Amino acid sequence: MQSKVSASTLRDPGLAPSGHQKIDWVRAHMPILNQLEKELGATRPFAGQRVAMSIHLEAKTAYMALVFAAAGAEVFLTGSNPLSTQDDVAAAAAERGVTVHAWHGATAEEYTEHLVRTLQAARPTLLLDDGGDLTYLLHTSHKELGEGLIGGSEETSTGVQRLRAMEAEGVLRFPMVAVNHARMKHLFDNRYGTGQSTMESIMRNTNLSIAGKRVVVAGYGWCGKGVAMRARGLGARVIVCEVDPVLANEALMDGFDVMPMIRAAALGDIFVTVTGCEKVIRREHFAVMRDGAILANAGHFDVEIYKPDLEAWGGKPVRVRPNVDAYTGADGRRLYLIGEGRLANLAAGDGHPAEVMDLSFAVQILTHLWLLENRGKLEKRVVQVPAEIDARVAETRLRALGVEIDRLTPEQEQYIKSWQV
Amino acid sequence: MQSKVSASTLRDPGLAPSGHQKIDWVRAHMPILNQLEKELGATRPFAGQRVAMSIHLEAKTAYMALVFAAAGAEVFLTGSNPLSTQDDVAAAAAERGVTVHAWHGATAEEYTEHLVRTLQAARPTLLLDDGGDLTYLLHTSHKELGEGLIGGSEETSTGVQRLRAMEAEGVLRFPMVAVNHARMKHLFDNRYGTGQSTMESIMRNTNLSIAGKRVVVAGYGWCGKGVAMRARGLGARVIVCEVDPVLANEALMDGFDVMPMIRAAALGDIFVTVTGCEKVIRREHFAVMRDGAILANAGHFDVEIYKPDLEAWGGKPVRVRPNVDAYTGADGRRLYLIGEGRLANLAAGDGHPAEVMDLSFAVQILTHLWLLENRGKLEKRVVQVPAEIDARVAETRLRALGVEIDRLTPEQEQYIKSWQV
Amino acid sequence: MQSKVSASTLRDPGLAPSGHQKIDWVRAHMPILNQLEKELGATRPFAGQRVAMSIHLEAKTAYMALVFAAAGAEVFLTGSNPLSTQDDVAAAAAERGVTVHAWHGATAEEYTEHLVRTLQAARPTLLLDDGGDLTYLLHTSHKELGEGLIGGSEETSTGVQRLRAMEAEGVLRFPMVAVNHARMKHLFDNRYGTGQSTMESIMRNTNLSIAGKRVVVAGYGWCGKGVAMRARGLGARVIVCEVDPVLANEALMDGFDVMPMIRAAALGDIFVTVTGCEKVIRREHFAVMRDGAILANAGHFDVEIYKPDLEAWGGKPVRVRPNVDAYTGADGRRLYLIGEGRLANLAAGDGHPAEVMDLSFAVQILTHLWLLENRGKLEKRVVQVPAEIDARVAETRLRALGVEIDRLTPEQEQYIKSWQV
Amino acid sequence: MQSKVSASTLRDPGLAPSGHQKIDWVRAHMPILNQLEKELGATRPFAGQRVAMSIHLEAKTAYMALVFAAAGAEVFLTGSNPLSTQDDVAAAAAERGVTVHAWHGATAEEYTEHLVRTLQAARPTLLLDDGGDLTYLLHTSHKELGEGLIGGSEETSTGVQRLRAMEAEGVLRFPMVAVNHARMKHLFDNRYGTGQSTMESIMRNTNLSIAGKRVVVAGYGWCGKGVAMRARGLGARVIVCEVDPVLANEALMDGFDVMPMIRAAALGDIFVTVTGCEKVIRREHFAVMRDGAILANAGHFDVEIYKPDLEAWGGKPVRVRPNVDAYTGADGRRLYLIGEGRLANLAAGDGHPAEVMDLSFAVQILTHLWLLENRGKLEKRVVQVPAEIDARVAETRLRALGVEIDRLTPEQEQYIKSWQV
Repeated sequence: MQSKVSASTLRDPGLAPSGHQKIDWVRAHMPILNQLEKELGATRPFAGQRVAMSIHLEAKTAYMALVFAAAGAEVFLTGSNPLSTQDDVAAAAAERGVTVHAWHGATAEEYTEHLVRTLQAARPTLLLDDGGDLTYLLHTSHKELGEGLIGGSEETSTGVQRLRAMEAEGVLRFPMVAVNHARMKHLFDNRYGTGQSTMESIMRNTNLSIAGKRVVVAGYGWCGKGVAMRARGLGARVIVCEVDPVLANEALMDGFDVMPMIRAAALGDIFVTVTGCEKVIRREHFAVMRDGAILANAGHFDVEIYKPDLEAWGGKPVRVRPNVDAYTGADGRRLYLIGEGRLANLAAGDGHPAEVMDLSFAVQILTHLWLLENRGKLEKRVVQVPAEIDARVAETRLRALGVEIDRLTPEQEQYIKSWQV
Repeated sequence: MQSKVSASTLRDPGLAPSGHQKIDWVRAHMPILNQLEKELGATRPFAGQRVAMSIHLEAKTAYMALVFAAAGAEVFLTGSNPLSTQDDVAAAAAERGVTVHAWHGATAEEYTEHLVRTLQAARPTLLLDDGGDLTYLLHTSHKELGEGLIGGSEETSTGVQRLRAMEAEGVLRFPMVAVNHARMKHLFDNRYGTGQSTMESIMRNTNLSIAGKRVVVAGYGWCGKGVAMRARGLGARVIVCEVDPVLANEALMDGFDVMPMIRAAALGDIFVTVTGCEKVIRREHFAVMRDGAILANAGHFDVEIYKPDLEAWGGKPVRVRPNVDAYTGADGRRLYLIGEGRLANLAAGDGHPAEVMDLSFAVQILTHLWLLENRGKLEKRVVQVPAEIDARVAETRLRALGVEIDRLTPEQEQYIKSWQV
Repeated sequence: MQSKVSASTLRDPGLAPSGHQKIDWVRAHMPILNQLEKELGATRPFAGQRVAMSIHLEAKTAYMALVFAAAGAEVFLTGSNPLSTQDDVAAAAAERGVTVHAWHGATAEEYTEHLVRTLQAARPTLLLDDGGDLTYLLHTSHKELGEGLIGGSEETSTGVQRLRAMEAEGVLRFPMVAVNHARMKHLFDNRYGTGQSTMESIMRNTNLSIAGKRVVVAGYGWCGKGVAMRARGLGARVIVCEVDPVLANEALMDGFDVMPMIRAAALGDIFVTVTGCEKVIRREHFAVMRDGAILANAGHFDVEIYKPDLEAWGGKPVRVRPNVDAYTGADGRRLYLIGEGRLANLAAGDGHPAEVMDLSFAVQILTHLWLLENRGKLEKRVVQVPAEIDARVAETRLRALGVEIDRLTPEQEQYIKSWQV
Repeated sequence: MQSKVSASTLRDPGLAPSGHQKIDWVRAHMPILNQLEKELGATRPFAGQRVAMSIHLEAKTAYMALVFAAAGAEVFLTGSNPLSTQDDVAAAAAERGVTVHAWHGATAEEYTEHLVRTLQAARPTLLLDDGGDLTYLLHTSHKELGEGLIGGSEETSTGVQRLRAMEAEGVLRFPMVAVNHARMKHLFDNRYGTGQSTMESIMRNTNLSIAGKRVVVAGYGWCGKGVAMRARGLGARVIVCEVDPVLANEALMDGFDVMPMIRAAALGDIFVTVTGCEKVIRREHFAVMRDGAILANAGHFDVEIYKPDLEAWGGKPVRVRPNVDAYTGADGRRLYLIGEGRLANLAAGDGHPAEVMDLSFAVQILTHLWLLENRGKLEKRVVQVPAEIDARVAETRLRALGVEIDRLTPEQEQYIKSWQV
C-alpha cells in the first residue's frame, strides 16, 4: 500500500515507528479482524469504495482502517475526540496507506477542520461515524459532500440517540446502521470494554486503591453496568445514580446502593459519569464533595462533569500528575479531574482492550459489506444490524478461542417447533 | 368474601390454617400488591370479570388471586405443574373466596381435569396462564370455553415461545400479553428469582456445599444467568452450556467456562438445566457423569433432564431424602435427581422470593387492567406490556423501599432533544 | 454393633428410620471420614477408650461418632444446644451402638441432665466438646467424672476462648486441643460452612430475596467473613459491625460498609450476629429498626440477639412460620426472629454442609488419635493441632476430589534453604 | 532540610521536579503518615539516629524516608530492585535531605555497589530492609558496618523467610522485626496492594482484556490470594497452582480451579507468579504454552519465571511495547514477558496504591520507634510487631476515613471474662 503521509494532516510523521509497534501489537490480538483481513484481502469487495471514518484514532481503529484498505477501500480517517488521537498511530496509518487528518490536542476549530478535510478528500461512498460529528456535518454545512453516500454506520449509544432524533424529524438523508445496538457490540464493548478500561485509567493515573473506596457510577446502562461491575470487582463499594426507575431497581438487585447524585456527592471517593446526558455532576454537587474526590467521565462528550461549574467552584486547575488536574475550592477542598473530563479511558489511557474492539470492528466491517450488498434497497432510517452478522462474529470468536458449544439436535429443533398447535 | 370451599377441588380443606399463615407471610412482603389491593379494592375495576388462572399454586400466586378478587373479579385458580401445588394454600385460597381446582401430586389425567374444570367453571373473560396449558386447551379441545375472552397474559418464556409459534401460524384466537417480556418481569423474576430459589432448593434438599463444586448450567438466558451468578456467589466454579453463540461469548466474558454438555457432563458435580428445550441432559451424558452428581431442573417442563434415558441407565429410583431420588448405574455410580426433574425451586422448595414475585404480579394485574381498558382494540397477537406499566411498577417499588432517584432537569431534557438537527 | 437404645435417653426410638436415611446420605458425602472408617476400622486404635461427646446432634456428628465406634471406642453422645438435636438421628445413632442422651427442645434442666448422664455413663478417657459445656461440668460440679481423662478437644472459637481463660487462671485440669484453630477446621468450617448454612437457613425459613437487601453482619472473624461473603454472593449490600479495628479495616477493604450497630440497626433488612459476645443487638437497636427486619444468630449461644430486651420491646412472640417468631412493638413495627435466636443454621436448618464437616471431623478423629499416642506427655493446657494433621486431612481431601498439585522439586527445596548465610 | 544531592549517587539530579510532583501526590493520600509526620516532627524521637533503607525507591517510600527525616533521623536510601527505582523520585528525595544511592536499570554490580555505599555512608543505627539484601551484606562481606545497629525491620515475606533461616542457624547478629507479619501489613499490602497493582500493570502494559481470559496464579499466600481475587473481579477464570495442600483446598473452596503448573501451562492466557520460590515456570511449561501467553511475576525476585529457560526456548527477546518483551519459539509461538520478569507492579508500574502503603509504612515507623524504646532489651532474633502498633495504625486509618466502630460495653467485657471458672 502506498504511503499517504503527504496527503495527510499529521502532528509529526516521524512518530510512525512507535505507531507501527502499537498497531502490530493489537493486530496480534484481534483474531476476527485477522480472518476478515485474510478473506476480504483475497476478494477485495470494497474496491472502488471511499470510506470516511471518524473514530478515536488509536491502534485498534487504525488496524480496522487497514483491514478496510486491504479489502479494497480507499480510507480517510479522522478522530472523534481531540484528546483521544494518538499522533504516532496517525503517522503509522498514513505510512500504511490511509489518508489521515487528525492530531492530538486539536482545538475546537482544528478538530472541525479535520472532519471537513476528511469529507472533502473522501467524497465518501461509505461513512463510519463515532458520536455523530461527520453525520452532523453532512446534514448541515456540508450536505453536498454526502451526495454519493450509500450509507453509514454509527458506533456509539450517543450517536444512535442523535440519529434517532433525526429520523423522528424525518431529516435523515441516508441509511445509518446502529452498530452500537448489535448484540456483539453493546453487550461486550460497552460493558466489558468500558468497564475495564475506565477503571484501569483511574488506577494508572492516580495510583490509588480502589478497594475500600466508594465509587459513584452515574448511569446504569450497559456502560454503567460495566463500570459498576469492575469497580466492585476491584473492592469498591458502589453507589449508582440513575434516572430510569427500571434500571435503578436493577442496580439495587445487583447489590448496589442507589440514590440521587446530591446524596452520593457527599459520600463518594471516586465518581464516574456514563449517562450520555449533560451536567450530571454540577455546581450543587461540587459544593458538598469530600476533599480529594476523583472525577472521571466515561460518556462520549465532556459535558457530564460540568467544567464551567467546576471552574466557578475551584478556579483554574493545576496539573498535579499527567492527566490529573486539581481544582481547589475556597474552603481548601481539592477535586481531581481525570483527562479534562473527556472519556477517561481514551483521553487518559489506551482505550478498550483489543479483543473487545475485535468484536465491535468485525461488526463494523461486515455491516459495511452488507450496506454495499444492499445498496439502494435500504430506507433512509436508522437500520438494525442483521442477526446473521452477530452470529457470524460470535462464532468466529469462539473458533478463535478454541471454544466449542452444543448444537441443537434435529429432534430438539423439532421439539421447539412442536409447541405450535 | 364468601368461601368457595364447596365449589372447589381440594386435597383437604382442613389444611387451610397453615395456608393462611403462608399467605399472610407473603402478603407482609409484597408491598406493590398491597398498594394495588388498596387502590383497586376501592374502585373494583374488575367487577363482573371472570379470571381463569393457571399458575404454580403457592402463597404468592394465591395472594395475587386475592388481589384480583379484592379488585372485583371472580377468580378461578388451578395449578401449572402437578408438584408445585401446595394443598394448604389451595384450601386457604378457597376459604377466602377463590374457586380452586388443584392438588399436589396430581396425575396427568387429574391435572388436565383440573384445568378443564377451571375453564368450565369460569367461562373466563380474562386469562392468566403460566406455560400455556390453559391457552392450549382453548385452542384445541375446548375452544368454546374461550368465546367470551377479552384477552390474556402469559407469565413464562416457554409460554411466550408457544404463543409466538401460534401467532406465526395465524391461529391465535385472542390477544395475549407477553408478561414475561416486561422488563420488570424477566429482568428480575427470571434472573434474581430463579437464581436464588434454584440454588436454595439444591442446598436445602442436599445439605451439600456449593463452594468447591463445579456447577454446570445449561442455558444462559436470563434464568441461566441468574443461576450461574448465584452458583458463583456461593463459591462454585461454573460451566455454562449454551447453543446461542452470542450468549456463549457473554458467558465467557462473565468469567465462566463454556463447553458442550458432553464435556461438562464428565466434570460437573451439580447440573442445572434452564433452557426451555428438551433432552438437554440425556443418555450419552449420564454415561460419563461422576459418581454422586446432583441433577436439578429449573426450566418449565420436566423434559430437560430426560428421565426415560435416566431410567434406562439407572433403573427405578430410590428416594434417599425428601425430594431426592437416587439412580444407580450398572457400574455402581449414583446420580441424584431433585424434585423428579420438575422445577426444583417449586417442586422441591417455596418458589421465588416474595419480593421478586411482587414485581411480576404487579405487572400481571396492571396488564389485565390495561386489557380491560383496551377491550376490542387489540389484535389477536402476542402483545407487549406497555412501557408505562414497567415504569409504574418500578417507581412503586422504589417508593416502597424508600429509595429516591434523580429526575432529569428541564435543561437536561432539552439537551437530549437538542441533538436533533 | 450392638444397639444402645435401651441405655439411651431418646425422644422416640421409633424415629430411627429417617435418622438412618440422613446418616447414610451424609456418609456418602464425607470421603475423608470414609477412609478413616476403613483404615481405623481395621486397626481399632480406640479399643478400650470411652469417648464423651457433646456436639450438635445431627447426621454428620452422628456419623463421626460411628467412625469413633468403628475405630474401637465406646461412644457416649449428647447435644450441645437444645434446639439443634434431631430426634430421628439420635434414635438411629443409638440403634447403631452409640449411647445417646439428648432430645430436641430440651429445657435448660433437661439439657444439663443429659450432659451429666453422658459423663456419668462414660467416665470418659477422651472428651470431645463443642462450646465447652462438658468441660465446664468437669471443672465445677462433676470434677470426679474427669479423673480418667487423657485429654480432649474443643470444636468452637467460643469454647477455645473459655479454655484460654481457664488456662490463664491456671485451673485447666487436662490437656485440651483447640481443634477450632486447626487450619483445616477454622479456615473451612467457620467460613464456608457457617457462611452457606446461615444464609440458606434465612432463605428457606423466610422465602425472601437476599438480592436488593441490606444484610448487617455483626462480627468479622472467620465466621463473619463467611456470612458476609455469601450474603454479597447472593446480591445483598452488606454492612459489617466489628469491634476490632484491624478486622474493621479488613472489612472495608473487602468492599463492605463498616459502622456501629446503632447506625446499622436503622438501615438493615436482615441481621446476622456472629461475634461470640452477648447483647450485640439490644434495646437501643430494636428501638430504631425498620419494620419487617429479620434477626438471625450464627454465634454459639443465644445471647447475641438479646431476647429479654426483644421481649421488653415487643412482648411475647407469635410464630408466623416454622422457625420464625414475630415480635410487634407498641408502634406496630414487627421484628422477626429465626430459630429463637439460637444458631440459625442448626436450630432452623441442617447445619453445615457435609463436605465441610468432613474436614473438621477428620481433624477431630486424628487429634484424638494423637492424644492417645501422646498420653501423659502433654501439659494441662490449650494445645495446638499438629501441622501434620492439617496436612494429612488436606491431602486426603485433594485425593478424594481427584485434584493434583505441584510438589517442590529438590532444586526448589534447596533454593529455599539456600537463603541462609 | 538540607539538600543531599552532592552526597548522593543519582542518574540525573535534573529530574527532581517530576519527582517532587509524585511525592506531593502520594503525600496527599497517606493520612496516617501525615499524622506521624506532624506528631514526630514535633518531638523528633529519631534525633541522632542513622537509618539505612533499602526499598523499592518510588514516591511512597521516598515519603516514608522523609517522615523519618522529619522525625529527626539521618536517612540513607537505596533501592531493592534495579528496575523499580524511579530516578526522578530519587533526585527529589536527595533535594529534600535524604542521601540516596540508586538508579534505575542498575547492573548487578552497580546495584550491590549502591547497597554498600549506603551502609558505608550510614553506619546505621537502624536498618529498614526489603528482601534482605542489606541484611545479607551485614552478615557476610560487611559485618563491620553493622556494629552500631540497634536493630532493624524487614518488609517482605521473602525477607522474613531468609531471616528465619538465619535465626534457625543461630547466626542473626541483631534483632529484626518481621514487619511483613504485622496484621496491618500483610493482610492489606500483600493482598489488596499486590492484587490491584499487579493486575493493573498487566492491563496498562498490554491493553488486553482480562475478562474472558484464563489467569494462572502460582502461589496462594496472601499475595496470591490478592491477585486471584482481583483477576476474578476483572472477569477472568482463575487457575491456582499451589504446593501447600491446605492452601490448595482453600483455593478450591474460594471457587478457583487448582492444578499442577504443567496442566495450567497449556490452558492459561496470563500467568502471574507470586510464590517466593524459583523456577516456578520453567522449560517444560514454556514448551506447552499457548501462542500469545502473557507472563508476569509479582514475587520478590526475578527467578520465578525462569529466564534462562525462556531464552533457551525463545532466544533473545524483542521489545514489542514498553515493558513487554516477546520471545518466539522455534514453532512460531510467542510468549510475552512483562518487566523482564521482575515485580510487574514495580518494574512496570507505580507499585502499590498509596493508601495501602500508608498502612505498611506507618507500621514501619512505629516499629522503629519501638526498637529505639526497647534498645538493648530485644534478643537477636526475628521479632514480632507488637499488637499495639497494629491497633494504633488501624484506629488511625479508621479515623482518617471517618469510620466509627462499636466498642465493647463494660458489661460485654465482663461477659467475655466470665467464661472463666
